[in-house]
Amino acid sequence: MSRFTPRDPDFEAKIRESVTRQGFAAHLGYELTRIEPGMTEFTCPLRPELMQQHGFAHGGLVSTLADAAAAYAAFSLMPPNSAPLTVEMKINLMAPGQGDALVARGVVLKPGRTLTVCEAKVYATRQLGETLIATALVTMMCMEGRQD
Amino acid sequence: MSRFTPRDPDFEAKIRESVTRQGFAAHLGYELTRIEPGMTEFTCPLRPELMQQHGFAHGGLVSTLADAAAAYAAFSLMPPNSAPLTVEMKINLMAPGQGDALVARGVVLKPGRTLTVCEAKVYATRQLGETLIATALVTMMCMEGRQD
Amino acid sequence: MSRFTPRDPDFEAKIRESVTRQGFAAHLGYELTRIEPGMTEFTCPLRPELMQQHGFAHGGLVSTLADAAAAYAAFSLMPPNSAPLTVEMKINLMAPGQGDALVARGVVLKPGRTLTVCEAKVYATRQLGETLIATALVTMMCMEGRQD
Amino acid sequence: MSRFTPRDPDFEAKIRESVTRQGFAAHLGYELTRIEPGMTEFTCPLRPELMQQHGFAHGGLVSTLADAAAAYAAFSLMPPNSAPLTVEMKINLMAPGQGDALVARGVVLKPGRTLTVCEAKVYATRQLGETLIATALVTMMCMEGRQD
Repeated sequence: MSRFTPRDPDFEAKIRESVTRQGFAAHLGYELTRIEPGMTEFTCPLRPELMQQHGFAHGGLVSTLADAAAAYAAFSLMPPNSAPLTVEMKINLMAPGQGDALVARGVVLKPGRTLTVCEAKVYATRQLGETLIATALVTMMCMEGRQD
Repeated sequence: MSRFTPRDPDFEAKIRESVTRQGFAAHLGYELTRIEPGMTEFTCPLRPELMQQHGFAHGGLVSTLADAAAAYAAFSLMPPNSAPLTVEMKINLMAPGQGDALVARGVVLKPGRTLTVCEAKVYATRQLGETLIATALVTMMCMEGRQD
Repeated sequence: MSRFTPRDPDFEAKIRESVTRQGFAAHLGYELTRIEPGMTEFTCPLRPELMQQHGFAHGGLVSTLADAAAAYAAFSLMPPNSAPLTVEMKINLMAPGQGDALVARGVVLKPGRTLTVCEAKVYATRQLGETLIATALVTMMCMEGRQD
Repeated sequence: MSRFTPRDPDFEAKIRESVTRQGFAAHLGYELTRIEPGMTEFTCPLRPELMQQHGFAHGGLVSTLADAAAAYAAFSLMPPNSAPLTVEMKINLMAPGQGDALVARGVVLKPGRTLTVCEAKVYATRQLGETLIATALVTMMCMEGRQD
């Protein structure tokens, strides 16, 4: 059970539809795999075109997933007729991204009318479990009066 | 003229070759367009599969280019037989990424034996010039005794 | 019970002694109030000379406490004959610092031989409880072969 | 000559007065030593009570000066009847803070109605010149309709 009450009862449909309009999501192959008020999870199967030169997931992919998970976690608590904007992000890459897929989970730490602070954790998954590979802090802005 | 003296005379060939091994670079379409000791530039033409839901460049793409430009700027000053690793990155997204292409320029602020601090700026370009859209601080680590 | 095993059995005495050598700690009035392997807590009673112009705790004080809590959490897991060094810190200030005292708790997210990633949370306390006012990510470096 | 035009013609007097209300500034001993539209400089003579356990300037002091320089740089461009608030800061500590004094210079990278992004650099000074010891990115918020 989430500790947040969404201000838009249609937050889930709104977010699912928004993700489909992200060309980048389709191109990289990540999908929304969980959603709650103040929390979203994205999963991205790993494949050669997502790798850097050492054969691990590119840091830019890890950042992208952290950004997506944090941004939509914040968006899930925003009122109708508003759009999320990433103000800034900080990420620590703590272990190489190797395995079957990357999973990013974003949660809202502090919601606000204008700014929302989120945390995202990224894990590499394989048969036997998941390994934490990155942690991020993300500041999101709510742009009121405009459709996402 | 760069203010840095590279410790590996083959830094340019080494970096050009390293980029070709990044599946992610080919998949997103970004290329190394300038290189000096302590500085690299990457350029990425914009196209629909790089966009977020508002039709602007995805923040994850902007982060990826900043990471690449900073990482290879640091790598250009590392000794032979070492590989670069991104420890952490912080990026402020300051304007929407729209135009013909994104250009990221990374420079070394402070080189070190183990850690190197870099700055990257990302610009959106169009006919009439370029607009600063993001600024990043990146900490890189030098892993000695291993090939990139 | 901590999930970490300290590599220096004297970590607690070593840290208590290190804090006494920080002129800044005495000048600001913060003290080590809890210590475990991979975790430290610092408490700082609030008084007028720690405030900014609106009468709240200065952001620099909040950053100082987050840095201290993270740094000593990392140091608690470092081997004998090594010293901690703060590489970088990122902090989000989420609520004004007002109340009787500030309490910062730092934990190790990912220990490493060279780099350790920590998280710190800062709370404002008053009679009825504590409020989260800031969250930070901190990268620490272990300098081996030198006394703290 | 600054490239910014201040929206409050009294920005300089306003900032000088604001600094005098910071108990923390007097307690640490830092002073505003330069001000222009979009830029401020603070100087802090070093003394034992500002040091950490190795005899260098405490990282929290460096963060405090970076925060002050960035915050007042942003405030210099804000309209009358508004107050600055630090949203978040990221700082890389690149060299030990030793010498006669620390000098922090903050500049506005991107002013905005709600958010302003600033950069701050901190230097250690001694007779023969100054050494860059830290670089920071800071996000400031403008709270309109309230006095600083």
